[in-house]
Amino acid sequence: MKKVSVFKIPQSSPDDLSGLIDLVEVQQLFAAQDVVAIMGKTEGNGCVNDFTRGFAVATLKAYLKSHGAAADRVVYVMSGGTEGVLTPHMTIFVQCEISLSASDGEQHEHVHTKPPTPRLGLTLGVYHTRDFLVEEIGTLVMVEVVAAGVKAAMDAAGLTTEHVHLVQIKCPLIVTALRKTVGTDMTTTAAQQDSYKSMAHSRAASALGVALALGEISPLDLTSDNVICNNYDLFSSVASTSAGVELQNCEILVLGNAPDSYSDCYIAHSVMAHALDSAAVYRARESAAIVNGDDGYKVVNVFCKAEADPTGQVLGCRHTMLDDSDINHTRMARAVVGAVVASVVQDPMIYVSGGAEHQGPPGGGPIAVIYRAAQKP
Amino acid sequence: MKKVSVFKIPQSSPDDLSGLIDLVEVQQLFAAQDVVAIMGKTEGNGCVNDFTRGFAVATLKAYLKSHGAAADRVVYVMSGGTEGVLTPHMTIFVQCEISLSASDGEQHEHVHTKPPTPRLGLTLGVYHTRDFLVEEIGTLVMVEVVAAGVKAAMDAAGLTTEHVHLVQIKCPLIVTALRKTVGTDMTTTAAQQDSYKSMAHSRAASALGVALALGEISPLDLTSDNVICNNYDLFSSVASTSAGVELQNCEILVLGNAPDSYSDCYIAHSVMAHALDSAAVYRARESAAIVNGDDGYKVVNVFCKAEADPTGQVLGCRHTMLDDSDINHTRMARAVVGAVVASVVQDPMIYVSGGAEHQGPPGGGPIAVIYRAAQKP
Amino acid sequence: MKKVSVFKIPQSSPDDLSGLIDLVEVQQLFAAQDVVAIMGKTEGNGCVNDFTRGFAVATLKAYLKSHGAAADRVVYVMSGGTEGVLTPHMTIFVQCEISLSASDGEQHEHVHTKPPTPRLGLTLGVYHTRDFLVEEIGTLVMVEVVAAGVKAAMDAAGLTTEHVHLVQIKCPLIVTALRKTVGTDMTTTAAQQDSYKSMAHSRAASALGVALALGEISPLDLTSDNVICNNYDLFSSVASTSAGVELQNCEILVLGNAPDSYSDCYIAHSVMAHALDSAAVYRARESAAIVNGDDGYKVVNVFCKAEADPTGQVLGCRHTMLDDSDINHTRMARAVVGAVVASVVQDPMIYVSGGAEHQGPPGGGPIAVIYRAAQKP
Amino acid sequence: MKKVSVFKIPQSSPDDLSGLIDLVEVQQLFAAQDVVAIMGKTEGNGCVNDFTRGFAVATLKAYLKSHGAAADRVVYVMSGGTEGVLTPHMTIFVQCEISLSASDGEQHEHVHTKPPTPRLGLTLGVYHTRDFLVEEIGTLVMVEVVAAGVKAAMDAAGLTTEHVHLVQIKCPLIVTALRKTVGTDMTTTAAQQDSYKSMAHSRAASALGVALALGEISPLDLTSDNVICNNYDLFSSVASTSAGVELQNCEILVLGNAPDSYSDCYIAHSVMAHALDSAAVYRARESAAIVNGDDGYKVVNVFCKAEADPTGQVLGCRHTMLDDSDINHTRMARAVVGAVVASVVQDPMIYVSGGAEHQGPPGGGPIAVIYRAAQKP
Repeated sequence: MKKVSVFKIPQSSPDDLSGLIDLVEVQQLFAAQDVVAIMGKTEGNGCVNDFTRGFAVATLKAYLKSHGAAADRVVYVMSGGTEGVLTPHMTIFVQCEISLSASDGEQHEHVHTKPPTPRLGLTLGVYHTRDFLVEEIGTLVMVEVVAAGVKAAMDAAGLTTEHVHLVQIKCPLIVTALRKTVGTDMTTTAAQQDSYKSMAHSRAASALGVALALGEISPLDLTSDNVICNNYDLFSSVASTSAGVELQNCEILVLGNAPDSYSDCYIAHSVMAHALDSAAVYRARESAAIVNGDDGYKVVNVFCKAEADPTGQVLGCRHTMLDDSDINHTRMARAVVGAVVASVVQDPMIYVSGGAEHQGPPGGGPIAVIYRAAQKP
Repeated sequence: MKKVSVFKIPQSSPDDLSGLIDLVEVQQLFAAQDVVAIMGKTEGNGCVNDFTRGFAVATLKAYLKSHGAAADRVVYVMSGGTEGVLTPHMTIFVQCEISLSASDGEQHEHVHTKPPTPRLGLTLGVYHTRDFLVEEIGTLVMVEVVAAGVKAAMDAAGLTTEHVHLVQIKCPLIVTALRKTVGTDMTTTAAQQDSYKSMAHSRAASALGVALALGEISPLDLTSDNVICNNYDLFSSVASTSAGVELQNCEILVLGNAPDSYSDCYIAHSVMAHALDSAAVYRARESAAIVNGDDGYKVVNVFCKAEADPTGQVLGCRHTMLDDSDINHTRMARAVVGAVVASVVQDPMIYVSGGAEHQGPPGGGPIAVIYRAAQKP
Repeated sequence: MKKVSVFKIPQSSPDDLSGLIDLVEVQQLFAAQDVVAIMGKTEGNGCVNDFTRGFAVATLKAYLKSHGAAADRVVYVMSGGTEGVLTPHMTIFVQCEISLSASDGEQHEHVHTKPPTPRLGLTLGVYHTRDFLVEEIGTLVMVEVVAAGVKAAMDAAGLTTEHVHLVQIKCPLIVTALRKTVGTDMTTTAAQQDSYKSMAHSRAASALGVALALGEISPLDLTSDNVICNNYDLFSSVASTSAGVELQNCEILVLGNAPDSYSDCYIAHSVMAHALDSAAVYRARESAAIVNGDDGYKVVNVFCKAEADPTGQVLGCRHTMLDDSDINHTRMARAVVGAVVASVVQDPMIYVSGGAEHQGPPGGGPIAVIYRAAQKP
Repeated sequence: MKKVSVFKIPQSSPDDLSGLIDLVEVQQLFAAQDVVAIMGKTEGNGCVNDFTRGFAVATLKAYLKSHGAAADRVVYVMSGGTEGVLTPHMTIFVQCEISLSASDGEQHEHVHTKPPTPRLGLTLGVYHTRDFLVEEIGTLVMVEVVAAGVKAAMDAAGLTTEHVHLVQIKCPLIVTALRKTVGTDMTTTAAQQDSYKSMAHSRAASALGVALALGEISPLDLTSDNVICNNYDLFSSVASTSAGVELQNCEILVLGNAPDSYSDCYIAHSVMAHALDSAAVYRARESAAIVNGDDGYKVVNVFCKAEADPTGQVLGCRHTMLDDSDINHTRMARAVVGAVVASVVQDPMIYVSGGAEHQGPPGGGPIAVIYRAAQKP
């Protein structure tokens, strides 16, 4: 049987492998070959010209490859931007075979251990879509390819819709050099006219792909490419998507709880209605408490999305993020939601990603918590 | 007797007077001549080349002058920077004579009203220091001039040290053009070598002036100019200082509670130990609850200071604010503390000012709350 | 007869009137009532949240009004952004009646002066359009209103098409708060979805209005709103347009040479093919030399437009301006063209405005030079 | 005998090796083992948190290592910041043994070639200093270690002082995390208090090291650490230094002409007196023309330094770079000087590095040109 483990390690720079090396080589908690996915926050601007994501991925790939892993099959979701208190870090998802037969256990370990009992716990599935053409990014084609990929990842994980709590996707964007290959005639999409905007459209189409796969929206809602970044009534409550220059396809990571898990971790989620909705963090934690008792768990990491409210207001008061030409609003949104969530969990080493188009309601976003059951004495 | 009133109004731009005009001319809640001080958050970068502060002050002065006020005697504390969710707004402090004799009241109002009873409540004092020479900004000379000014403002308000909850100061900075008048030889201070840095030194010296006036530090602690921006063990728990290009002197506003006040407002304060110390907001609110009962009050505004922790860490985790060359750390610090405090009071129209040198402990800062007693039925 | 004079004065801040006061009150070179237009470079970001433009205009209006001028009829074209070496400054256009009869001259001046002789020289016309609805900004409606306004200004100046060398327009933009009044359904234009983008569309429609008025494009070219910011084959060689939050209409200033002018100034223009086309500056200066002899003139000011080449390349080499999420490309374009032009005229106090949509060819822009004939002994 | 060759290749991103691969593997113009130094412009902010430099170096090292080169002995000078028109690119310096005996030539090549004749041409020397302690960066200790390193590199190249035209140094900076190891007491240097400032002090000390090695300043001028970033009368006319997080030592590359060179390249230099001194570019090119005849050469690359004039003025006019809190002045200085030089050579693929402390006169900087003699028919 397979067991999913989760590790969180701080980084002093995008190419800092010291924490990973410590886990793999010194503490020997897992083998490089068992790494399935890595979600990281890197300290770039999180926008178009953020090369910290690519630097982190290249460094990780080289290390995993040199340690015998099939490095290209790992899902890397590097999200740029650690504005405010956010701490650059990585969350490593490991999946390894565990032995279940008691006799087998005895033979190898020479101790009388009971075989582990399956229970409700964390499981995951991954999927790599094909590369997208420039003219497909941010369109309904992308929505459908992503939806199919999400379903494939769920199937691989044996997850049903109601047990999915986070679908994390890394998606491509369109830089100026790529745009030239498409031309600048009047048929180009909004995504194709502006690099920063292409990030929004790519995140948006990926999120709608999740919503479609999970039945949160109907195929009939997707009347044309125009719904993307426009009709924000359509959204997923568990999608978290992040764009970067360092890939041309979508990499999908589905996280949920399965009844027959051997993991010591669980996942829960909630939805922030707006950037200051600290109650949502408590709600997400409460669902953890229900399963485990009040103090019977420890938060491993929080994963959430942030965006500047498109109405230009939060709680009825004007904000200036959308009209600030010096700092992109995605950067400020991360700083805000990062601070709010970190103040609740009293830990700034959390994953907050910017640009929540179709991810949660407008101005808000999904929030997922992975927690670990406290060890019994 | 004098009565202090407080009004909070949003602004759609630095020169938006519509809210003030409504209060003065439409609702006629106070006269322009009775305005004593105005504290505002304007939507500039809050750093050197932020002209939104000066634009706001110029607009306010022209309006007050045209309505018969002695506009130059008003204290204007415009603090630039509404990063994240912060809403541009002004807090207007009004002080007017009220009639106390019952008969006098009857004569004028033709109704049987009881004369107001004095009780513990908000009071204020103001002081304008002399202009500073460029070579004095950020030095012990400034500390001493400010300390004397704070004492003068307290005396004017009849406030003793233990009842002071907020000393707000607007102080000057040194732009490049001014620096040239001093020369660039080796005797120039750090403040004189860098415009952005001069803001920190001016805020720092002003804050130490408050600490000195209130006995939070001893004159013996001030061994040389080098303690400024260096020995952060020296700080005030009630100072809030803010630098701007639009003045050459310091404008001081002291706020506290007096036993014989006729104001319907109170002020309380606490200290944030770090940027994520949301508990401090609750503590500041609790002291309000003690006087008024649990729901017997309403928060008018929160005033607090923010800074990127100079150790490079918050709660033991690395932050990247000090090494970010794209966004000044004072901007990010405002976004963070603004979000944390706004999430507690569920109101983004609060006053958060950046750069807390010697204002609260390193990485933290003072937080004051003005609240209004709920009206009894 | 009327005579146009031009004055250039540096500013130490957006509200610095010292240079203007010196000309009007100390040197008494002209009266405040005779000011027709003021073009300024202010030191903001030149993008959406640039309040230095509004601050400068408010300060100028208050001064002119207090000196008896019809301040609202003056055309104010404040262009934000003095990136790189550019020096904040104002160019003041003054038009006053001069006496032509010799006897009249004798009577008033008590000296034997010859009446001035008209010759080819600078003239100008101004026009204020009506305010635009939010949904009109950046559309063909705007193009047509501007075209009519340009013609009206030319008629007022007695200028024919071939003698027009610069049409400067200040136009509005759409901030987030205004956008809300239009709604966010799918019929909104690109200009209405993004404040920074709305600046481009407003500049673009204004420039096409100039091109239409001058016959540089045909009404048949304007097939739909989609040509705006799309078909860059359509452009004007003399339009210079600049957007700002501080107005809702367009203010138009047409500059050219008339055969019967009494001005000591002339204007010439050329077109920069790309950002490094320093030869265009020489060409514009040469046309000055043709009229005046090699050293018979002095450059008063240069007015030009700058934009990041939309192909992502300059002279076949990649530039990174369009993919830089930290600094808006209009800011960098001003820095580049400002440096190139300033290095040719060896004067950084020039007018370079960003965003040259439909103003000159893609990646390039118009450049106009006002020069003054050298005084003869 | 050794021959130095120079290749310039554009990059589409910091990790783009396609140009290098083409030269080494497709065109086979040189072997990876023969690469001595690589100078690059990468598209980061060129300030503290610029990881594009490290990403480029890591990618290059991995490639060179995999092709058998002693990758750690190559000098990598990646300079961040391609503001404005500057094109990300690399200049590869290759040094290989060439055969001089005619018979040997005949044997191997089976053609009758004359052995090459030595003449005045490009030569180079490199040196890697030891790692610096944090408290040494930006001090006289660094000056002396660098001076010794420059002399060692000159000796290795057989270069005498008068033939040195460019000394390029990559030097370290102090990030916040490193600063903590030193403590924050009052004995810390300016460089240790501020990451961005530490870049200036590191560049400054390195440049003074060059000046000392070449006799441009005397050891007696270096009275104390205070001269660094203070007494700008002390400078080198050929030093170009660039700081980065990606190293802890200094890497030194000395370029000059030797009489017995086999290179087809030459180097010349001049000094820009200020940012708009385009005449200096012509002067540097002229010295090339003297040797080669008017059209007998082709510019391979230009290497120059840029800084915002510390007086706050260029040509007597105010600039706003030093008071701009949104964009660091080193970024704008690169945009300006890059545009000026590129407009003269009509090529934006040039090397312009920011921060010219003690490199050329205040506000100006050294400019070197590598050119190649035109091939004779």
